[in-house]
Amino acid sequence: MTAAEVIARKRAGRAHSRAEIEYLVRGATDGSIPDFQLAAWLMAVCFQGMTGDETAWLTEAMAASGKMLDLQVRWPDVVDKHSTGGVGDKTTLVLVPMLAAAGVHVAKMSGRALGFSGGTIDKLESIPGLRTGLSEREFLDQVDRIGLAVASQSDDLAPADGKLYALRDLTATVESLPLIASSIMSKKLACRAGRLVLDVKVGAGAFMKTPEDARALADAMVYIGRDAGVRTSAVLSDMSQPEGRAIGNALEVREAVEVLQGGGPADVLELCKVLASALGVEGVERTIASGAAFEKLQAVVEAQGGDLGALDRPDGLPRAGLQQEVCAAASGYVAAVDAEALGRAAMALGAGRVAKGQAVDPAVGLVLRAKVGDAVRRGQPLVEVHANDRAKLDTVLAALPSAFLYSDRPVAAPEQATAIISAS
Amino acid sequence: MTAAEVIARKRAGRAHSRAEIEYLVRGATDGSIPDFQLAAWLMAVCFQGMTGDETAWLTEAMAASGKMLDLQVRWPDVVDKHSTGGVGDKTTLVLVPMLAAAGVHVAKMSGRALGFSGGTIDKLESIPGLRTGLSEREFLDQVDRIGLAVASQSDDLAPADGKLYALRDLTATVESLPLIASSIMSKKLACRAGRLVLDVKVGAGAFMKTPEDARALADAMVYIGRDAGVRTSAVLSDMSQPEGRAIGNALEVREAVEVLQGGGPADVLELCKVLASALGVEGVERTIASGAAFEKLQAVVEAQGGDLGALDRPDGLPRAGLQQEVCAAASGYVAAVDAEALGRAAMALGAGRVAKGQAVDPAVGLVLRAKVGDAVRRGQPLVEVHANDRAKLDTVLAALPSAFLYSDRPVAAPEQATAIISAS
Repeated sequence: MTAAEVIARKRAGRAHSRAEIEYLVRGATDGSIPDFQLAAWLMAVCFQGMTGDETAWLTEAMAASGKMLDLQVRWPDVVDKHSTGGVGDKTTLVLVPMLAAAGVHVAKMSGRALGFSGGTIDKLESIPGLRTGLSEREFLDQVDRIGLAVASQSDDLAPADGKLYALRDLTATVESLPLIASSIMSKKLACRAGRLVLDVKVGAGAFMKTPEDARALADAMVYIGRDAGVRTSAVLSDMSQPEGRAIGNALEVREAVEVLQGGGPADVLELCKVLASALGVEGVERTIASGAAFEKLQAVVEAQGGDLGALDRPDGLPRAGLQQEVCAAASGYVAAVDAEALGRAAMALGAGRVAKGQAVDPAVGLVLRAKVGDAVRRGQPLVEVHANDRAKLDTVLAALPSAFLYSDRPVAAPEQATAIISAS
Repeated sequence: MTAAEVIARKRAGRAHSRAEIEYLVRGATDGSIPDFQLAAWLMAVCFQGMTGDETAWLTEAMAASGKMLDLQVRWPDVVDKHSTGGVGDKTTLVLVPMLAAAGVHVAKMSGRALGFSGGTIDKLESIPGLRTGLSEREFLDQVDRIGLAVASQSDDLAPADGKLYALRDLTATVESLPLIASSIMSKKLACRAGRLVLDVKVGAGAFMKTPEDARALADAMVYIGRDAGVRTSAVLSDMSQPEGRAIGNALEVREAVEVLQGGGPADVLELCKVLASALGVEGVERTIASGAAFEKLQAVVEAQGGDLGALDRPDGLPRAGLQQEVCAAASGYVAAVDAEALGRAAMALGAGRVAKGQAVDPAVGLVLRAKVGDAVRRGQPLVEVHANDRAKLDTVLAALPSAFLYSDRPVAAPEQATAIISAS
């Protein structure tokens, strides 16, 4: 077998054997197949696609390319959750303390913000002192001790995916359903929980803009998970408008705390209940009423070195120096709140990053005062802008009004969870 | 502009601007665009194609990426010829002395054998002592002095094509009409004759297996040539069966000498007349009757250090130690002679090479005793095998009979030149 032969096979639209896929992943991992051959193959995959089996084999080979943490062997009840990313997506911050408070083990590896989409690790790091770079030992010990840890993804997991992703990023081959599905799932399979739920966001503020694309991605990932022996389900959730009201790292932590304390926007809690149910954990809302979920968050913050008081004191989290409101330009019902536009506005304020490795400003962001379906009057506040830079603030103030559309007639709020896909 | 943006554009099926093409070629030449991005772009081109203008711009940029010899400025009447390659294709050996004898300048750069297809340079080098690695000065001076030189392609010409071709060879991206057309034409434009004729072979023994594919390649190359100010035409010529009767380096030189001396197979001379006419040179057959064409070949051999006597003495060229005939398995009319099978048989004997840089055996090959349309009787010789290795001879003897098909009824010989395409 040569790499050129394998590429030619995919170029011709034929399916790979498992041996061919493993040969490619081994070559990507040990460097024996040069980048230019991997890149040509990736582009051929973009045009010819991959079958479910090819995608599953690719995922498993990438998962096996580095360190593996077989968490389901260590804790048979361990669960995991992954979001495909969106604007204002603080679900992990709320859901994982609820799950741990409900008694299941949660060993969560998370990522950072990129583009208009936020990342759990950046959000958590807005809590002063909190460390997410846990060693494997620290991570496992913490889950043993308090049932929950949230750490930044280790580069030792699925290094073949890291290699291929870096190439995809530079060769216009990121957008490919089987490549996206296998990239996400390779990191999940490298630490293999017993159950996994995928929160597949769909709409303007997500990578998947249409329900059809989101459904196809969800199906592909559920197929991979099941093939690898992880009980996997997926929830398609609305990202036409931002999740909750806060967008930005500390602002989202603050909102997550409100939800865990029984307040906050209803859509966030609603989605968490659907996701927990998909993981087989019912009645998680009781962990809020009892205070157990918030106590679990406090335990995690304490265990990972964060300032516990930051969660309770209004000034405990970083606050931006400049705050200004944007008001409704018309009276009526809010018909659309463009999630991508708001995500880009938050990124422009410094809440996100354009390229890996850039710093983020934990304090800046947006807080929505109106969402789809709300009746507003001209001049009423629509969104609060939190900024640390006057020029950036001005740019965002100018851009924000066009993110809102109005209707004369009442508009229904979108369904939060639009479909649930369960593995058999 | 970034390489990733340019790749994304082609992936999406959009046409490049001239600036984008020049950016890619510059990056390929100076190494500022990494191979993996070039490879991804090449694969995207295989799927999305290129317009005539994109292909012409690519060709001109590759031609301008290295040394340029503007031959049409030096000699306004200078002509060039290129064959897309076939089995037994000794046209250059016959045509260029005829053209030079007819009074036009011929400054010819040629290539070597690869795969089942032969190469003029390997053929010429079967003449003892003959050098094809001429310096630029030697090459130009010889054309000034005797009107004709045949040199091996310099690596200084169109280095961007050399770079991209090496990548294509390893990434299953060789087969792409615009990439094939631009690769061939970039080397032609780098030395820019006043007139150029392209001999596009079609059939089993050619890279283009169908008249439609050959026509499309011819059209693409003629478009490029015209766009660059070279009066370009193309001839589609039959390669369903080998050209002439000899296949193998010294055997083909011997056959070319026979044609130049007024003998040899009629199809070779016929094709040379069509190609010369496409170059605007009529009546070249008179240079055979007068002996001028053969004298021109002798002058070239002498000028390039070859043994002049080798062309006249029966043992002047390398001869193989083992010679054996394969005879007809049936009586009837020869209906097909599989050019690719015979080309592969000659390669198996050592006449060709699988990969660049391998040595070839100048003496070995095949001589056909029957071609399509000939009546044969069972047991009558069909082909002579010239070998230097008993095991290789045996392999070829076993494979050859299946290269011939017979018919009970008379079969017409194929047309040699099936279409002529002229630039306006």
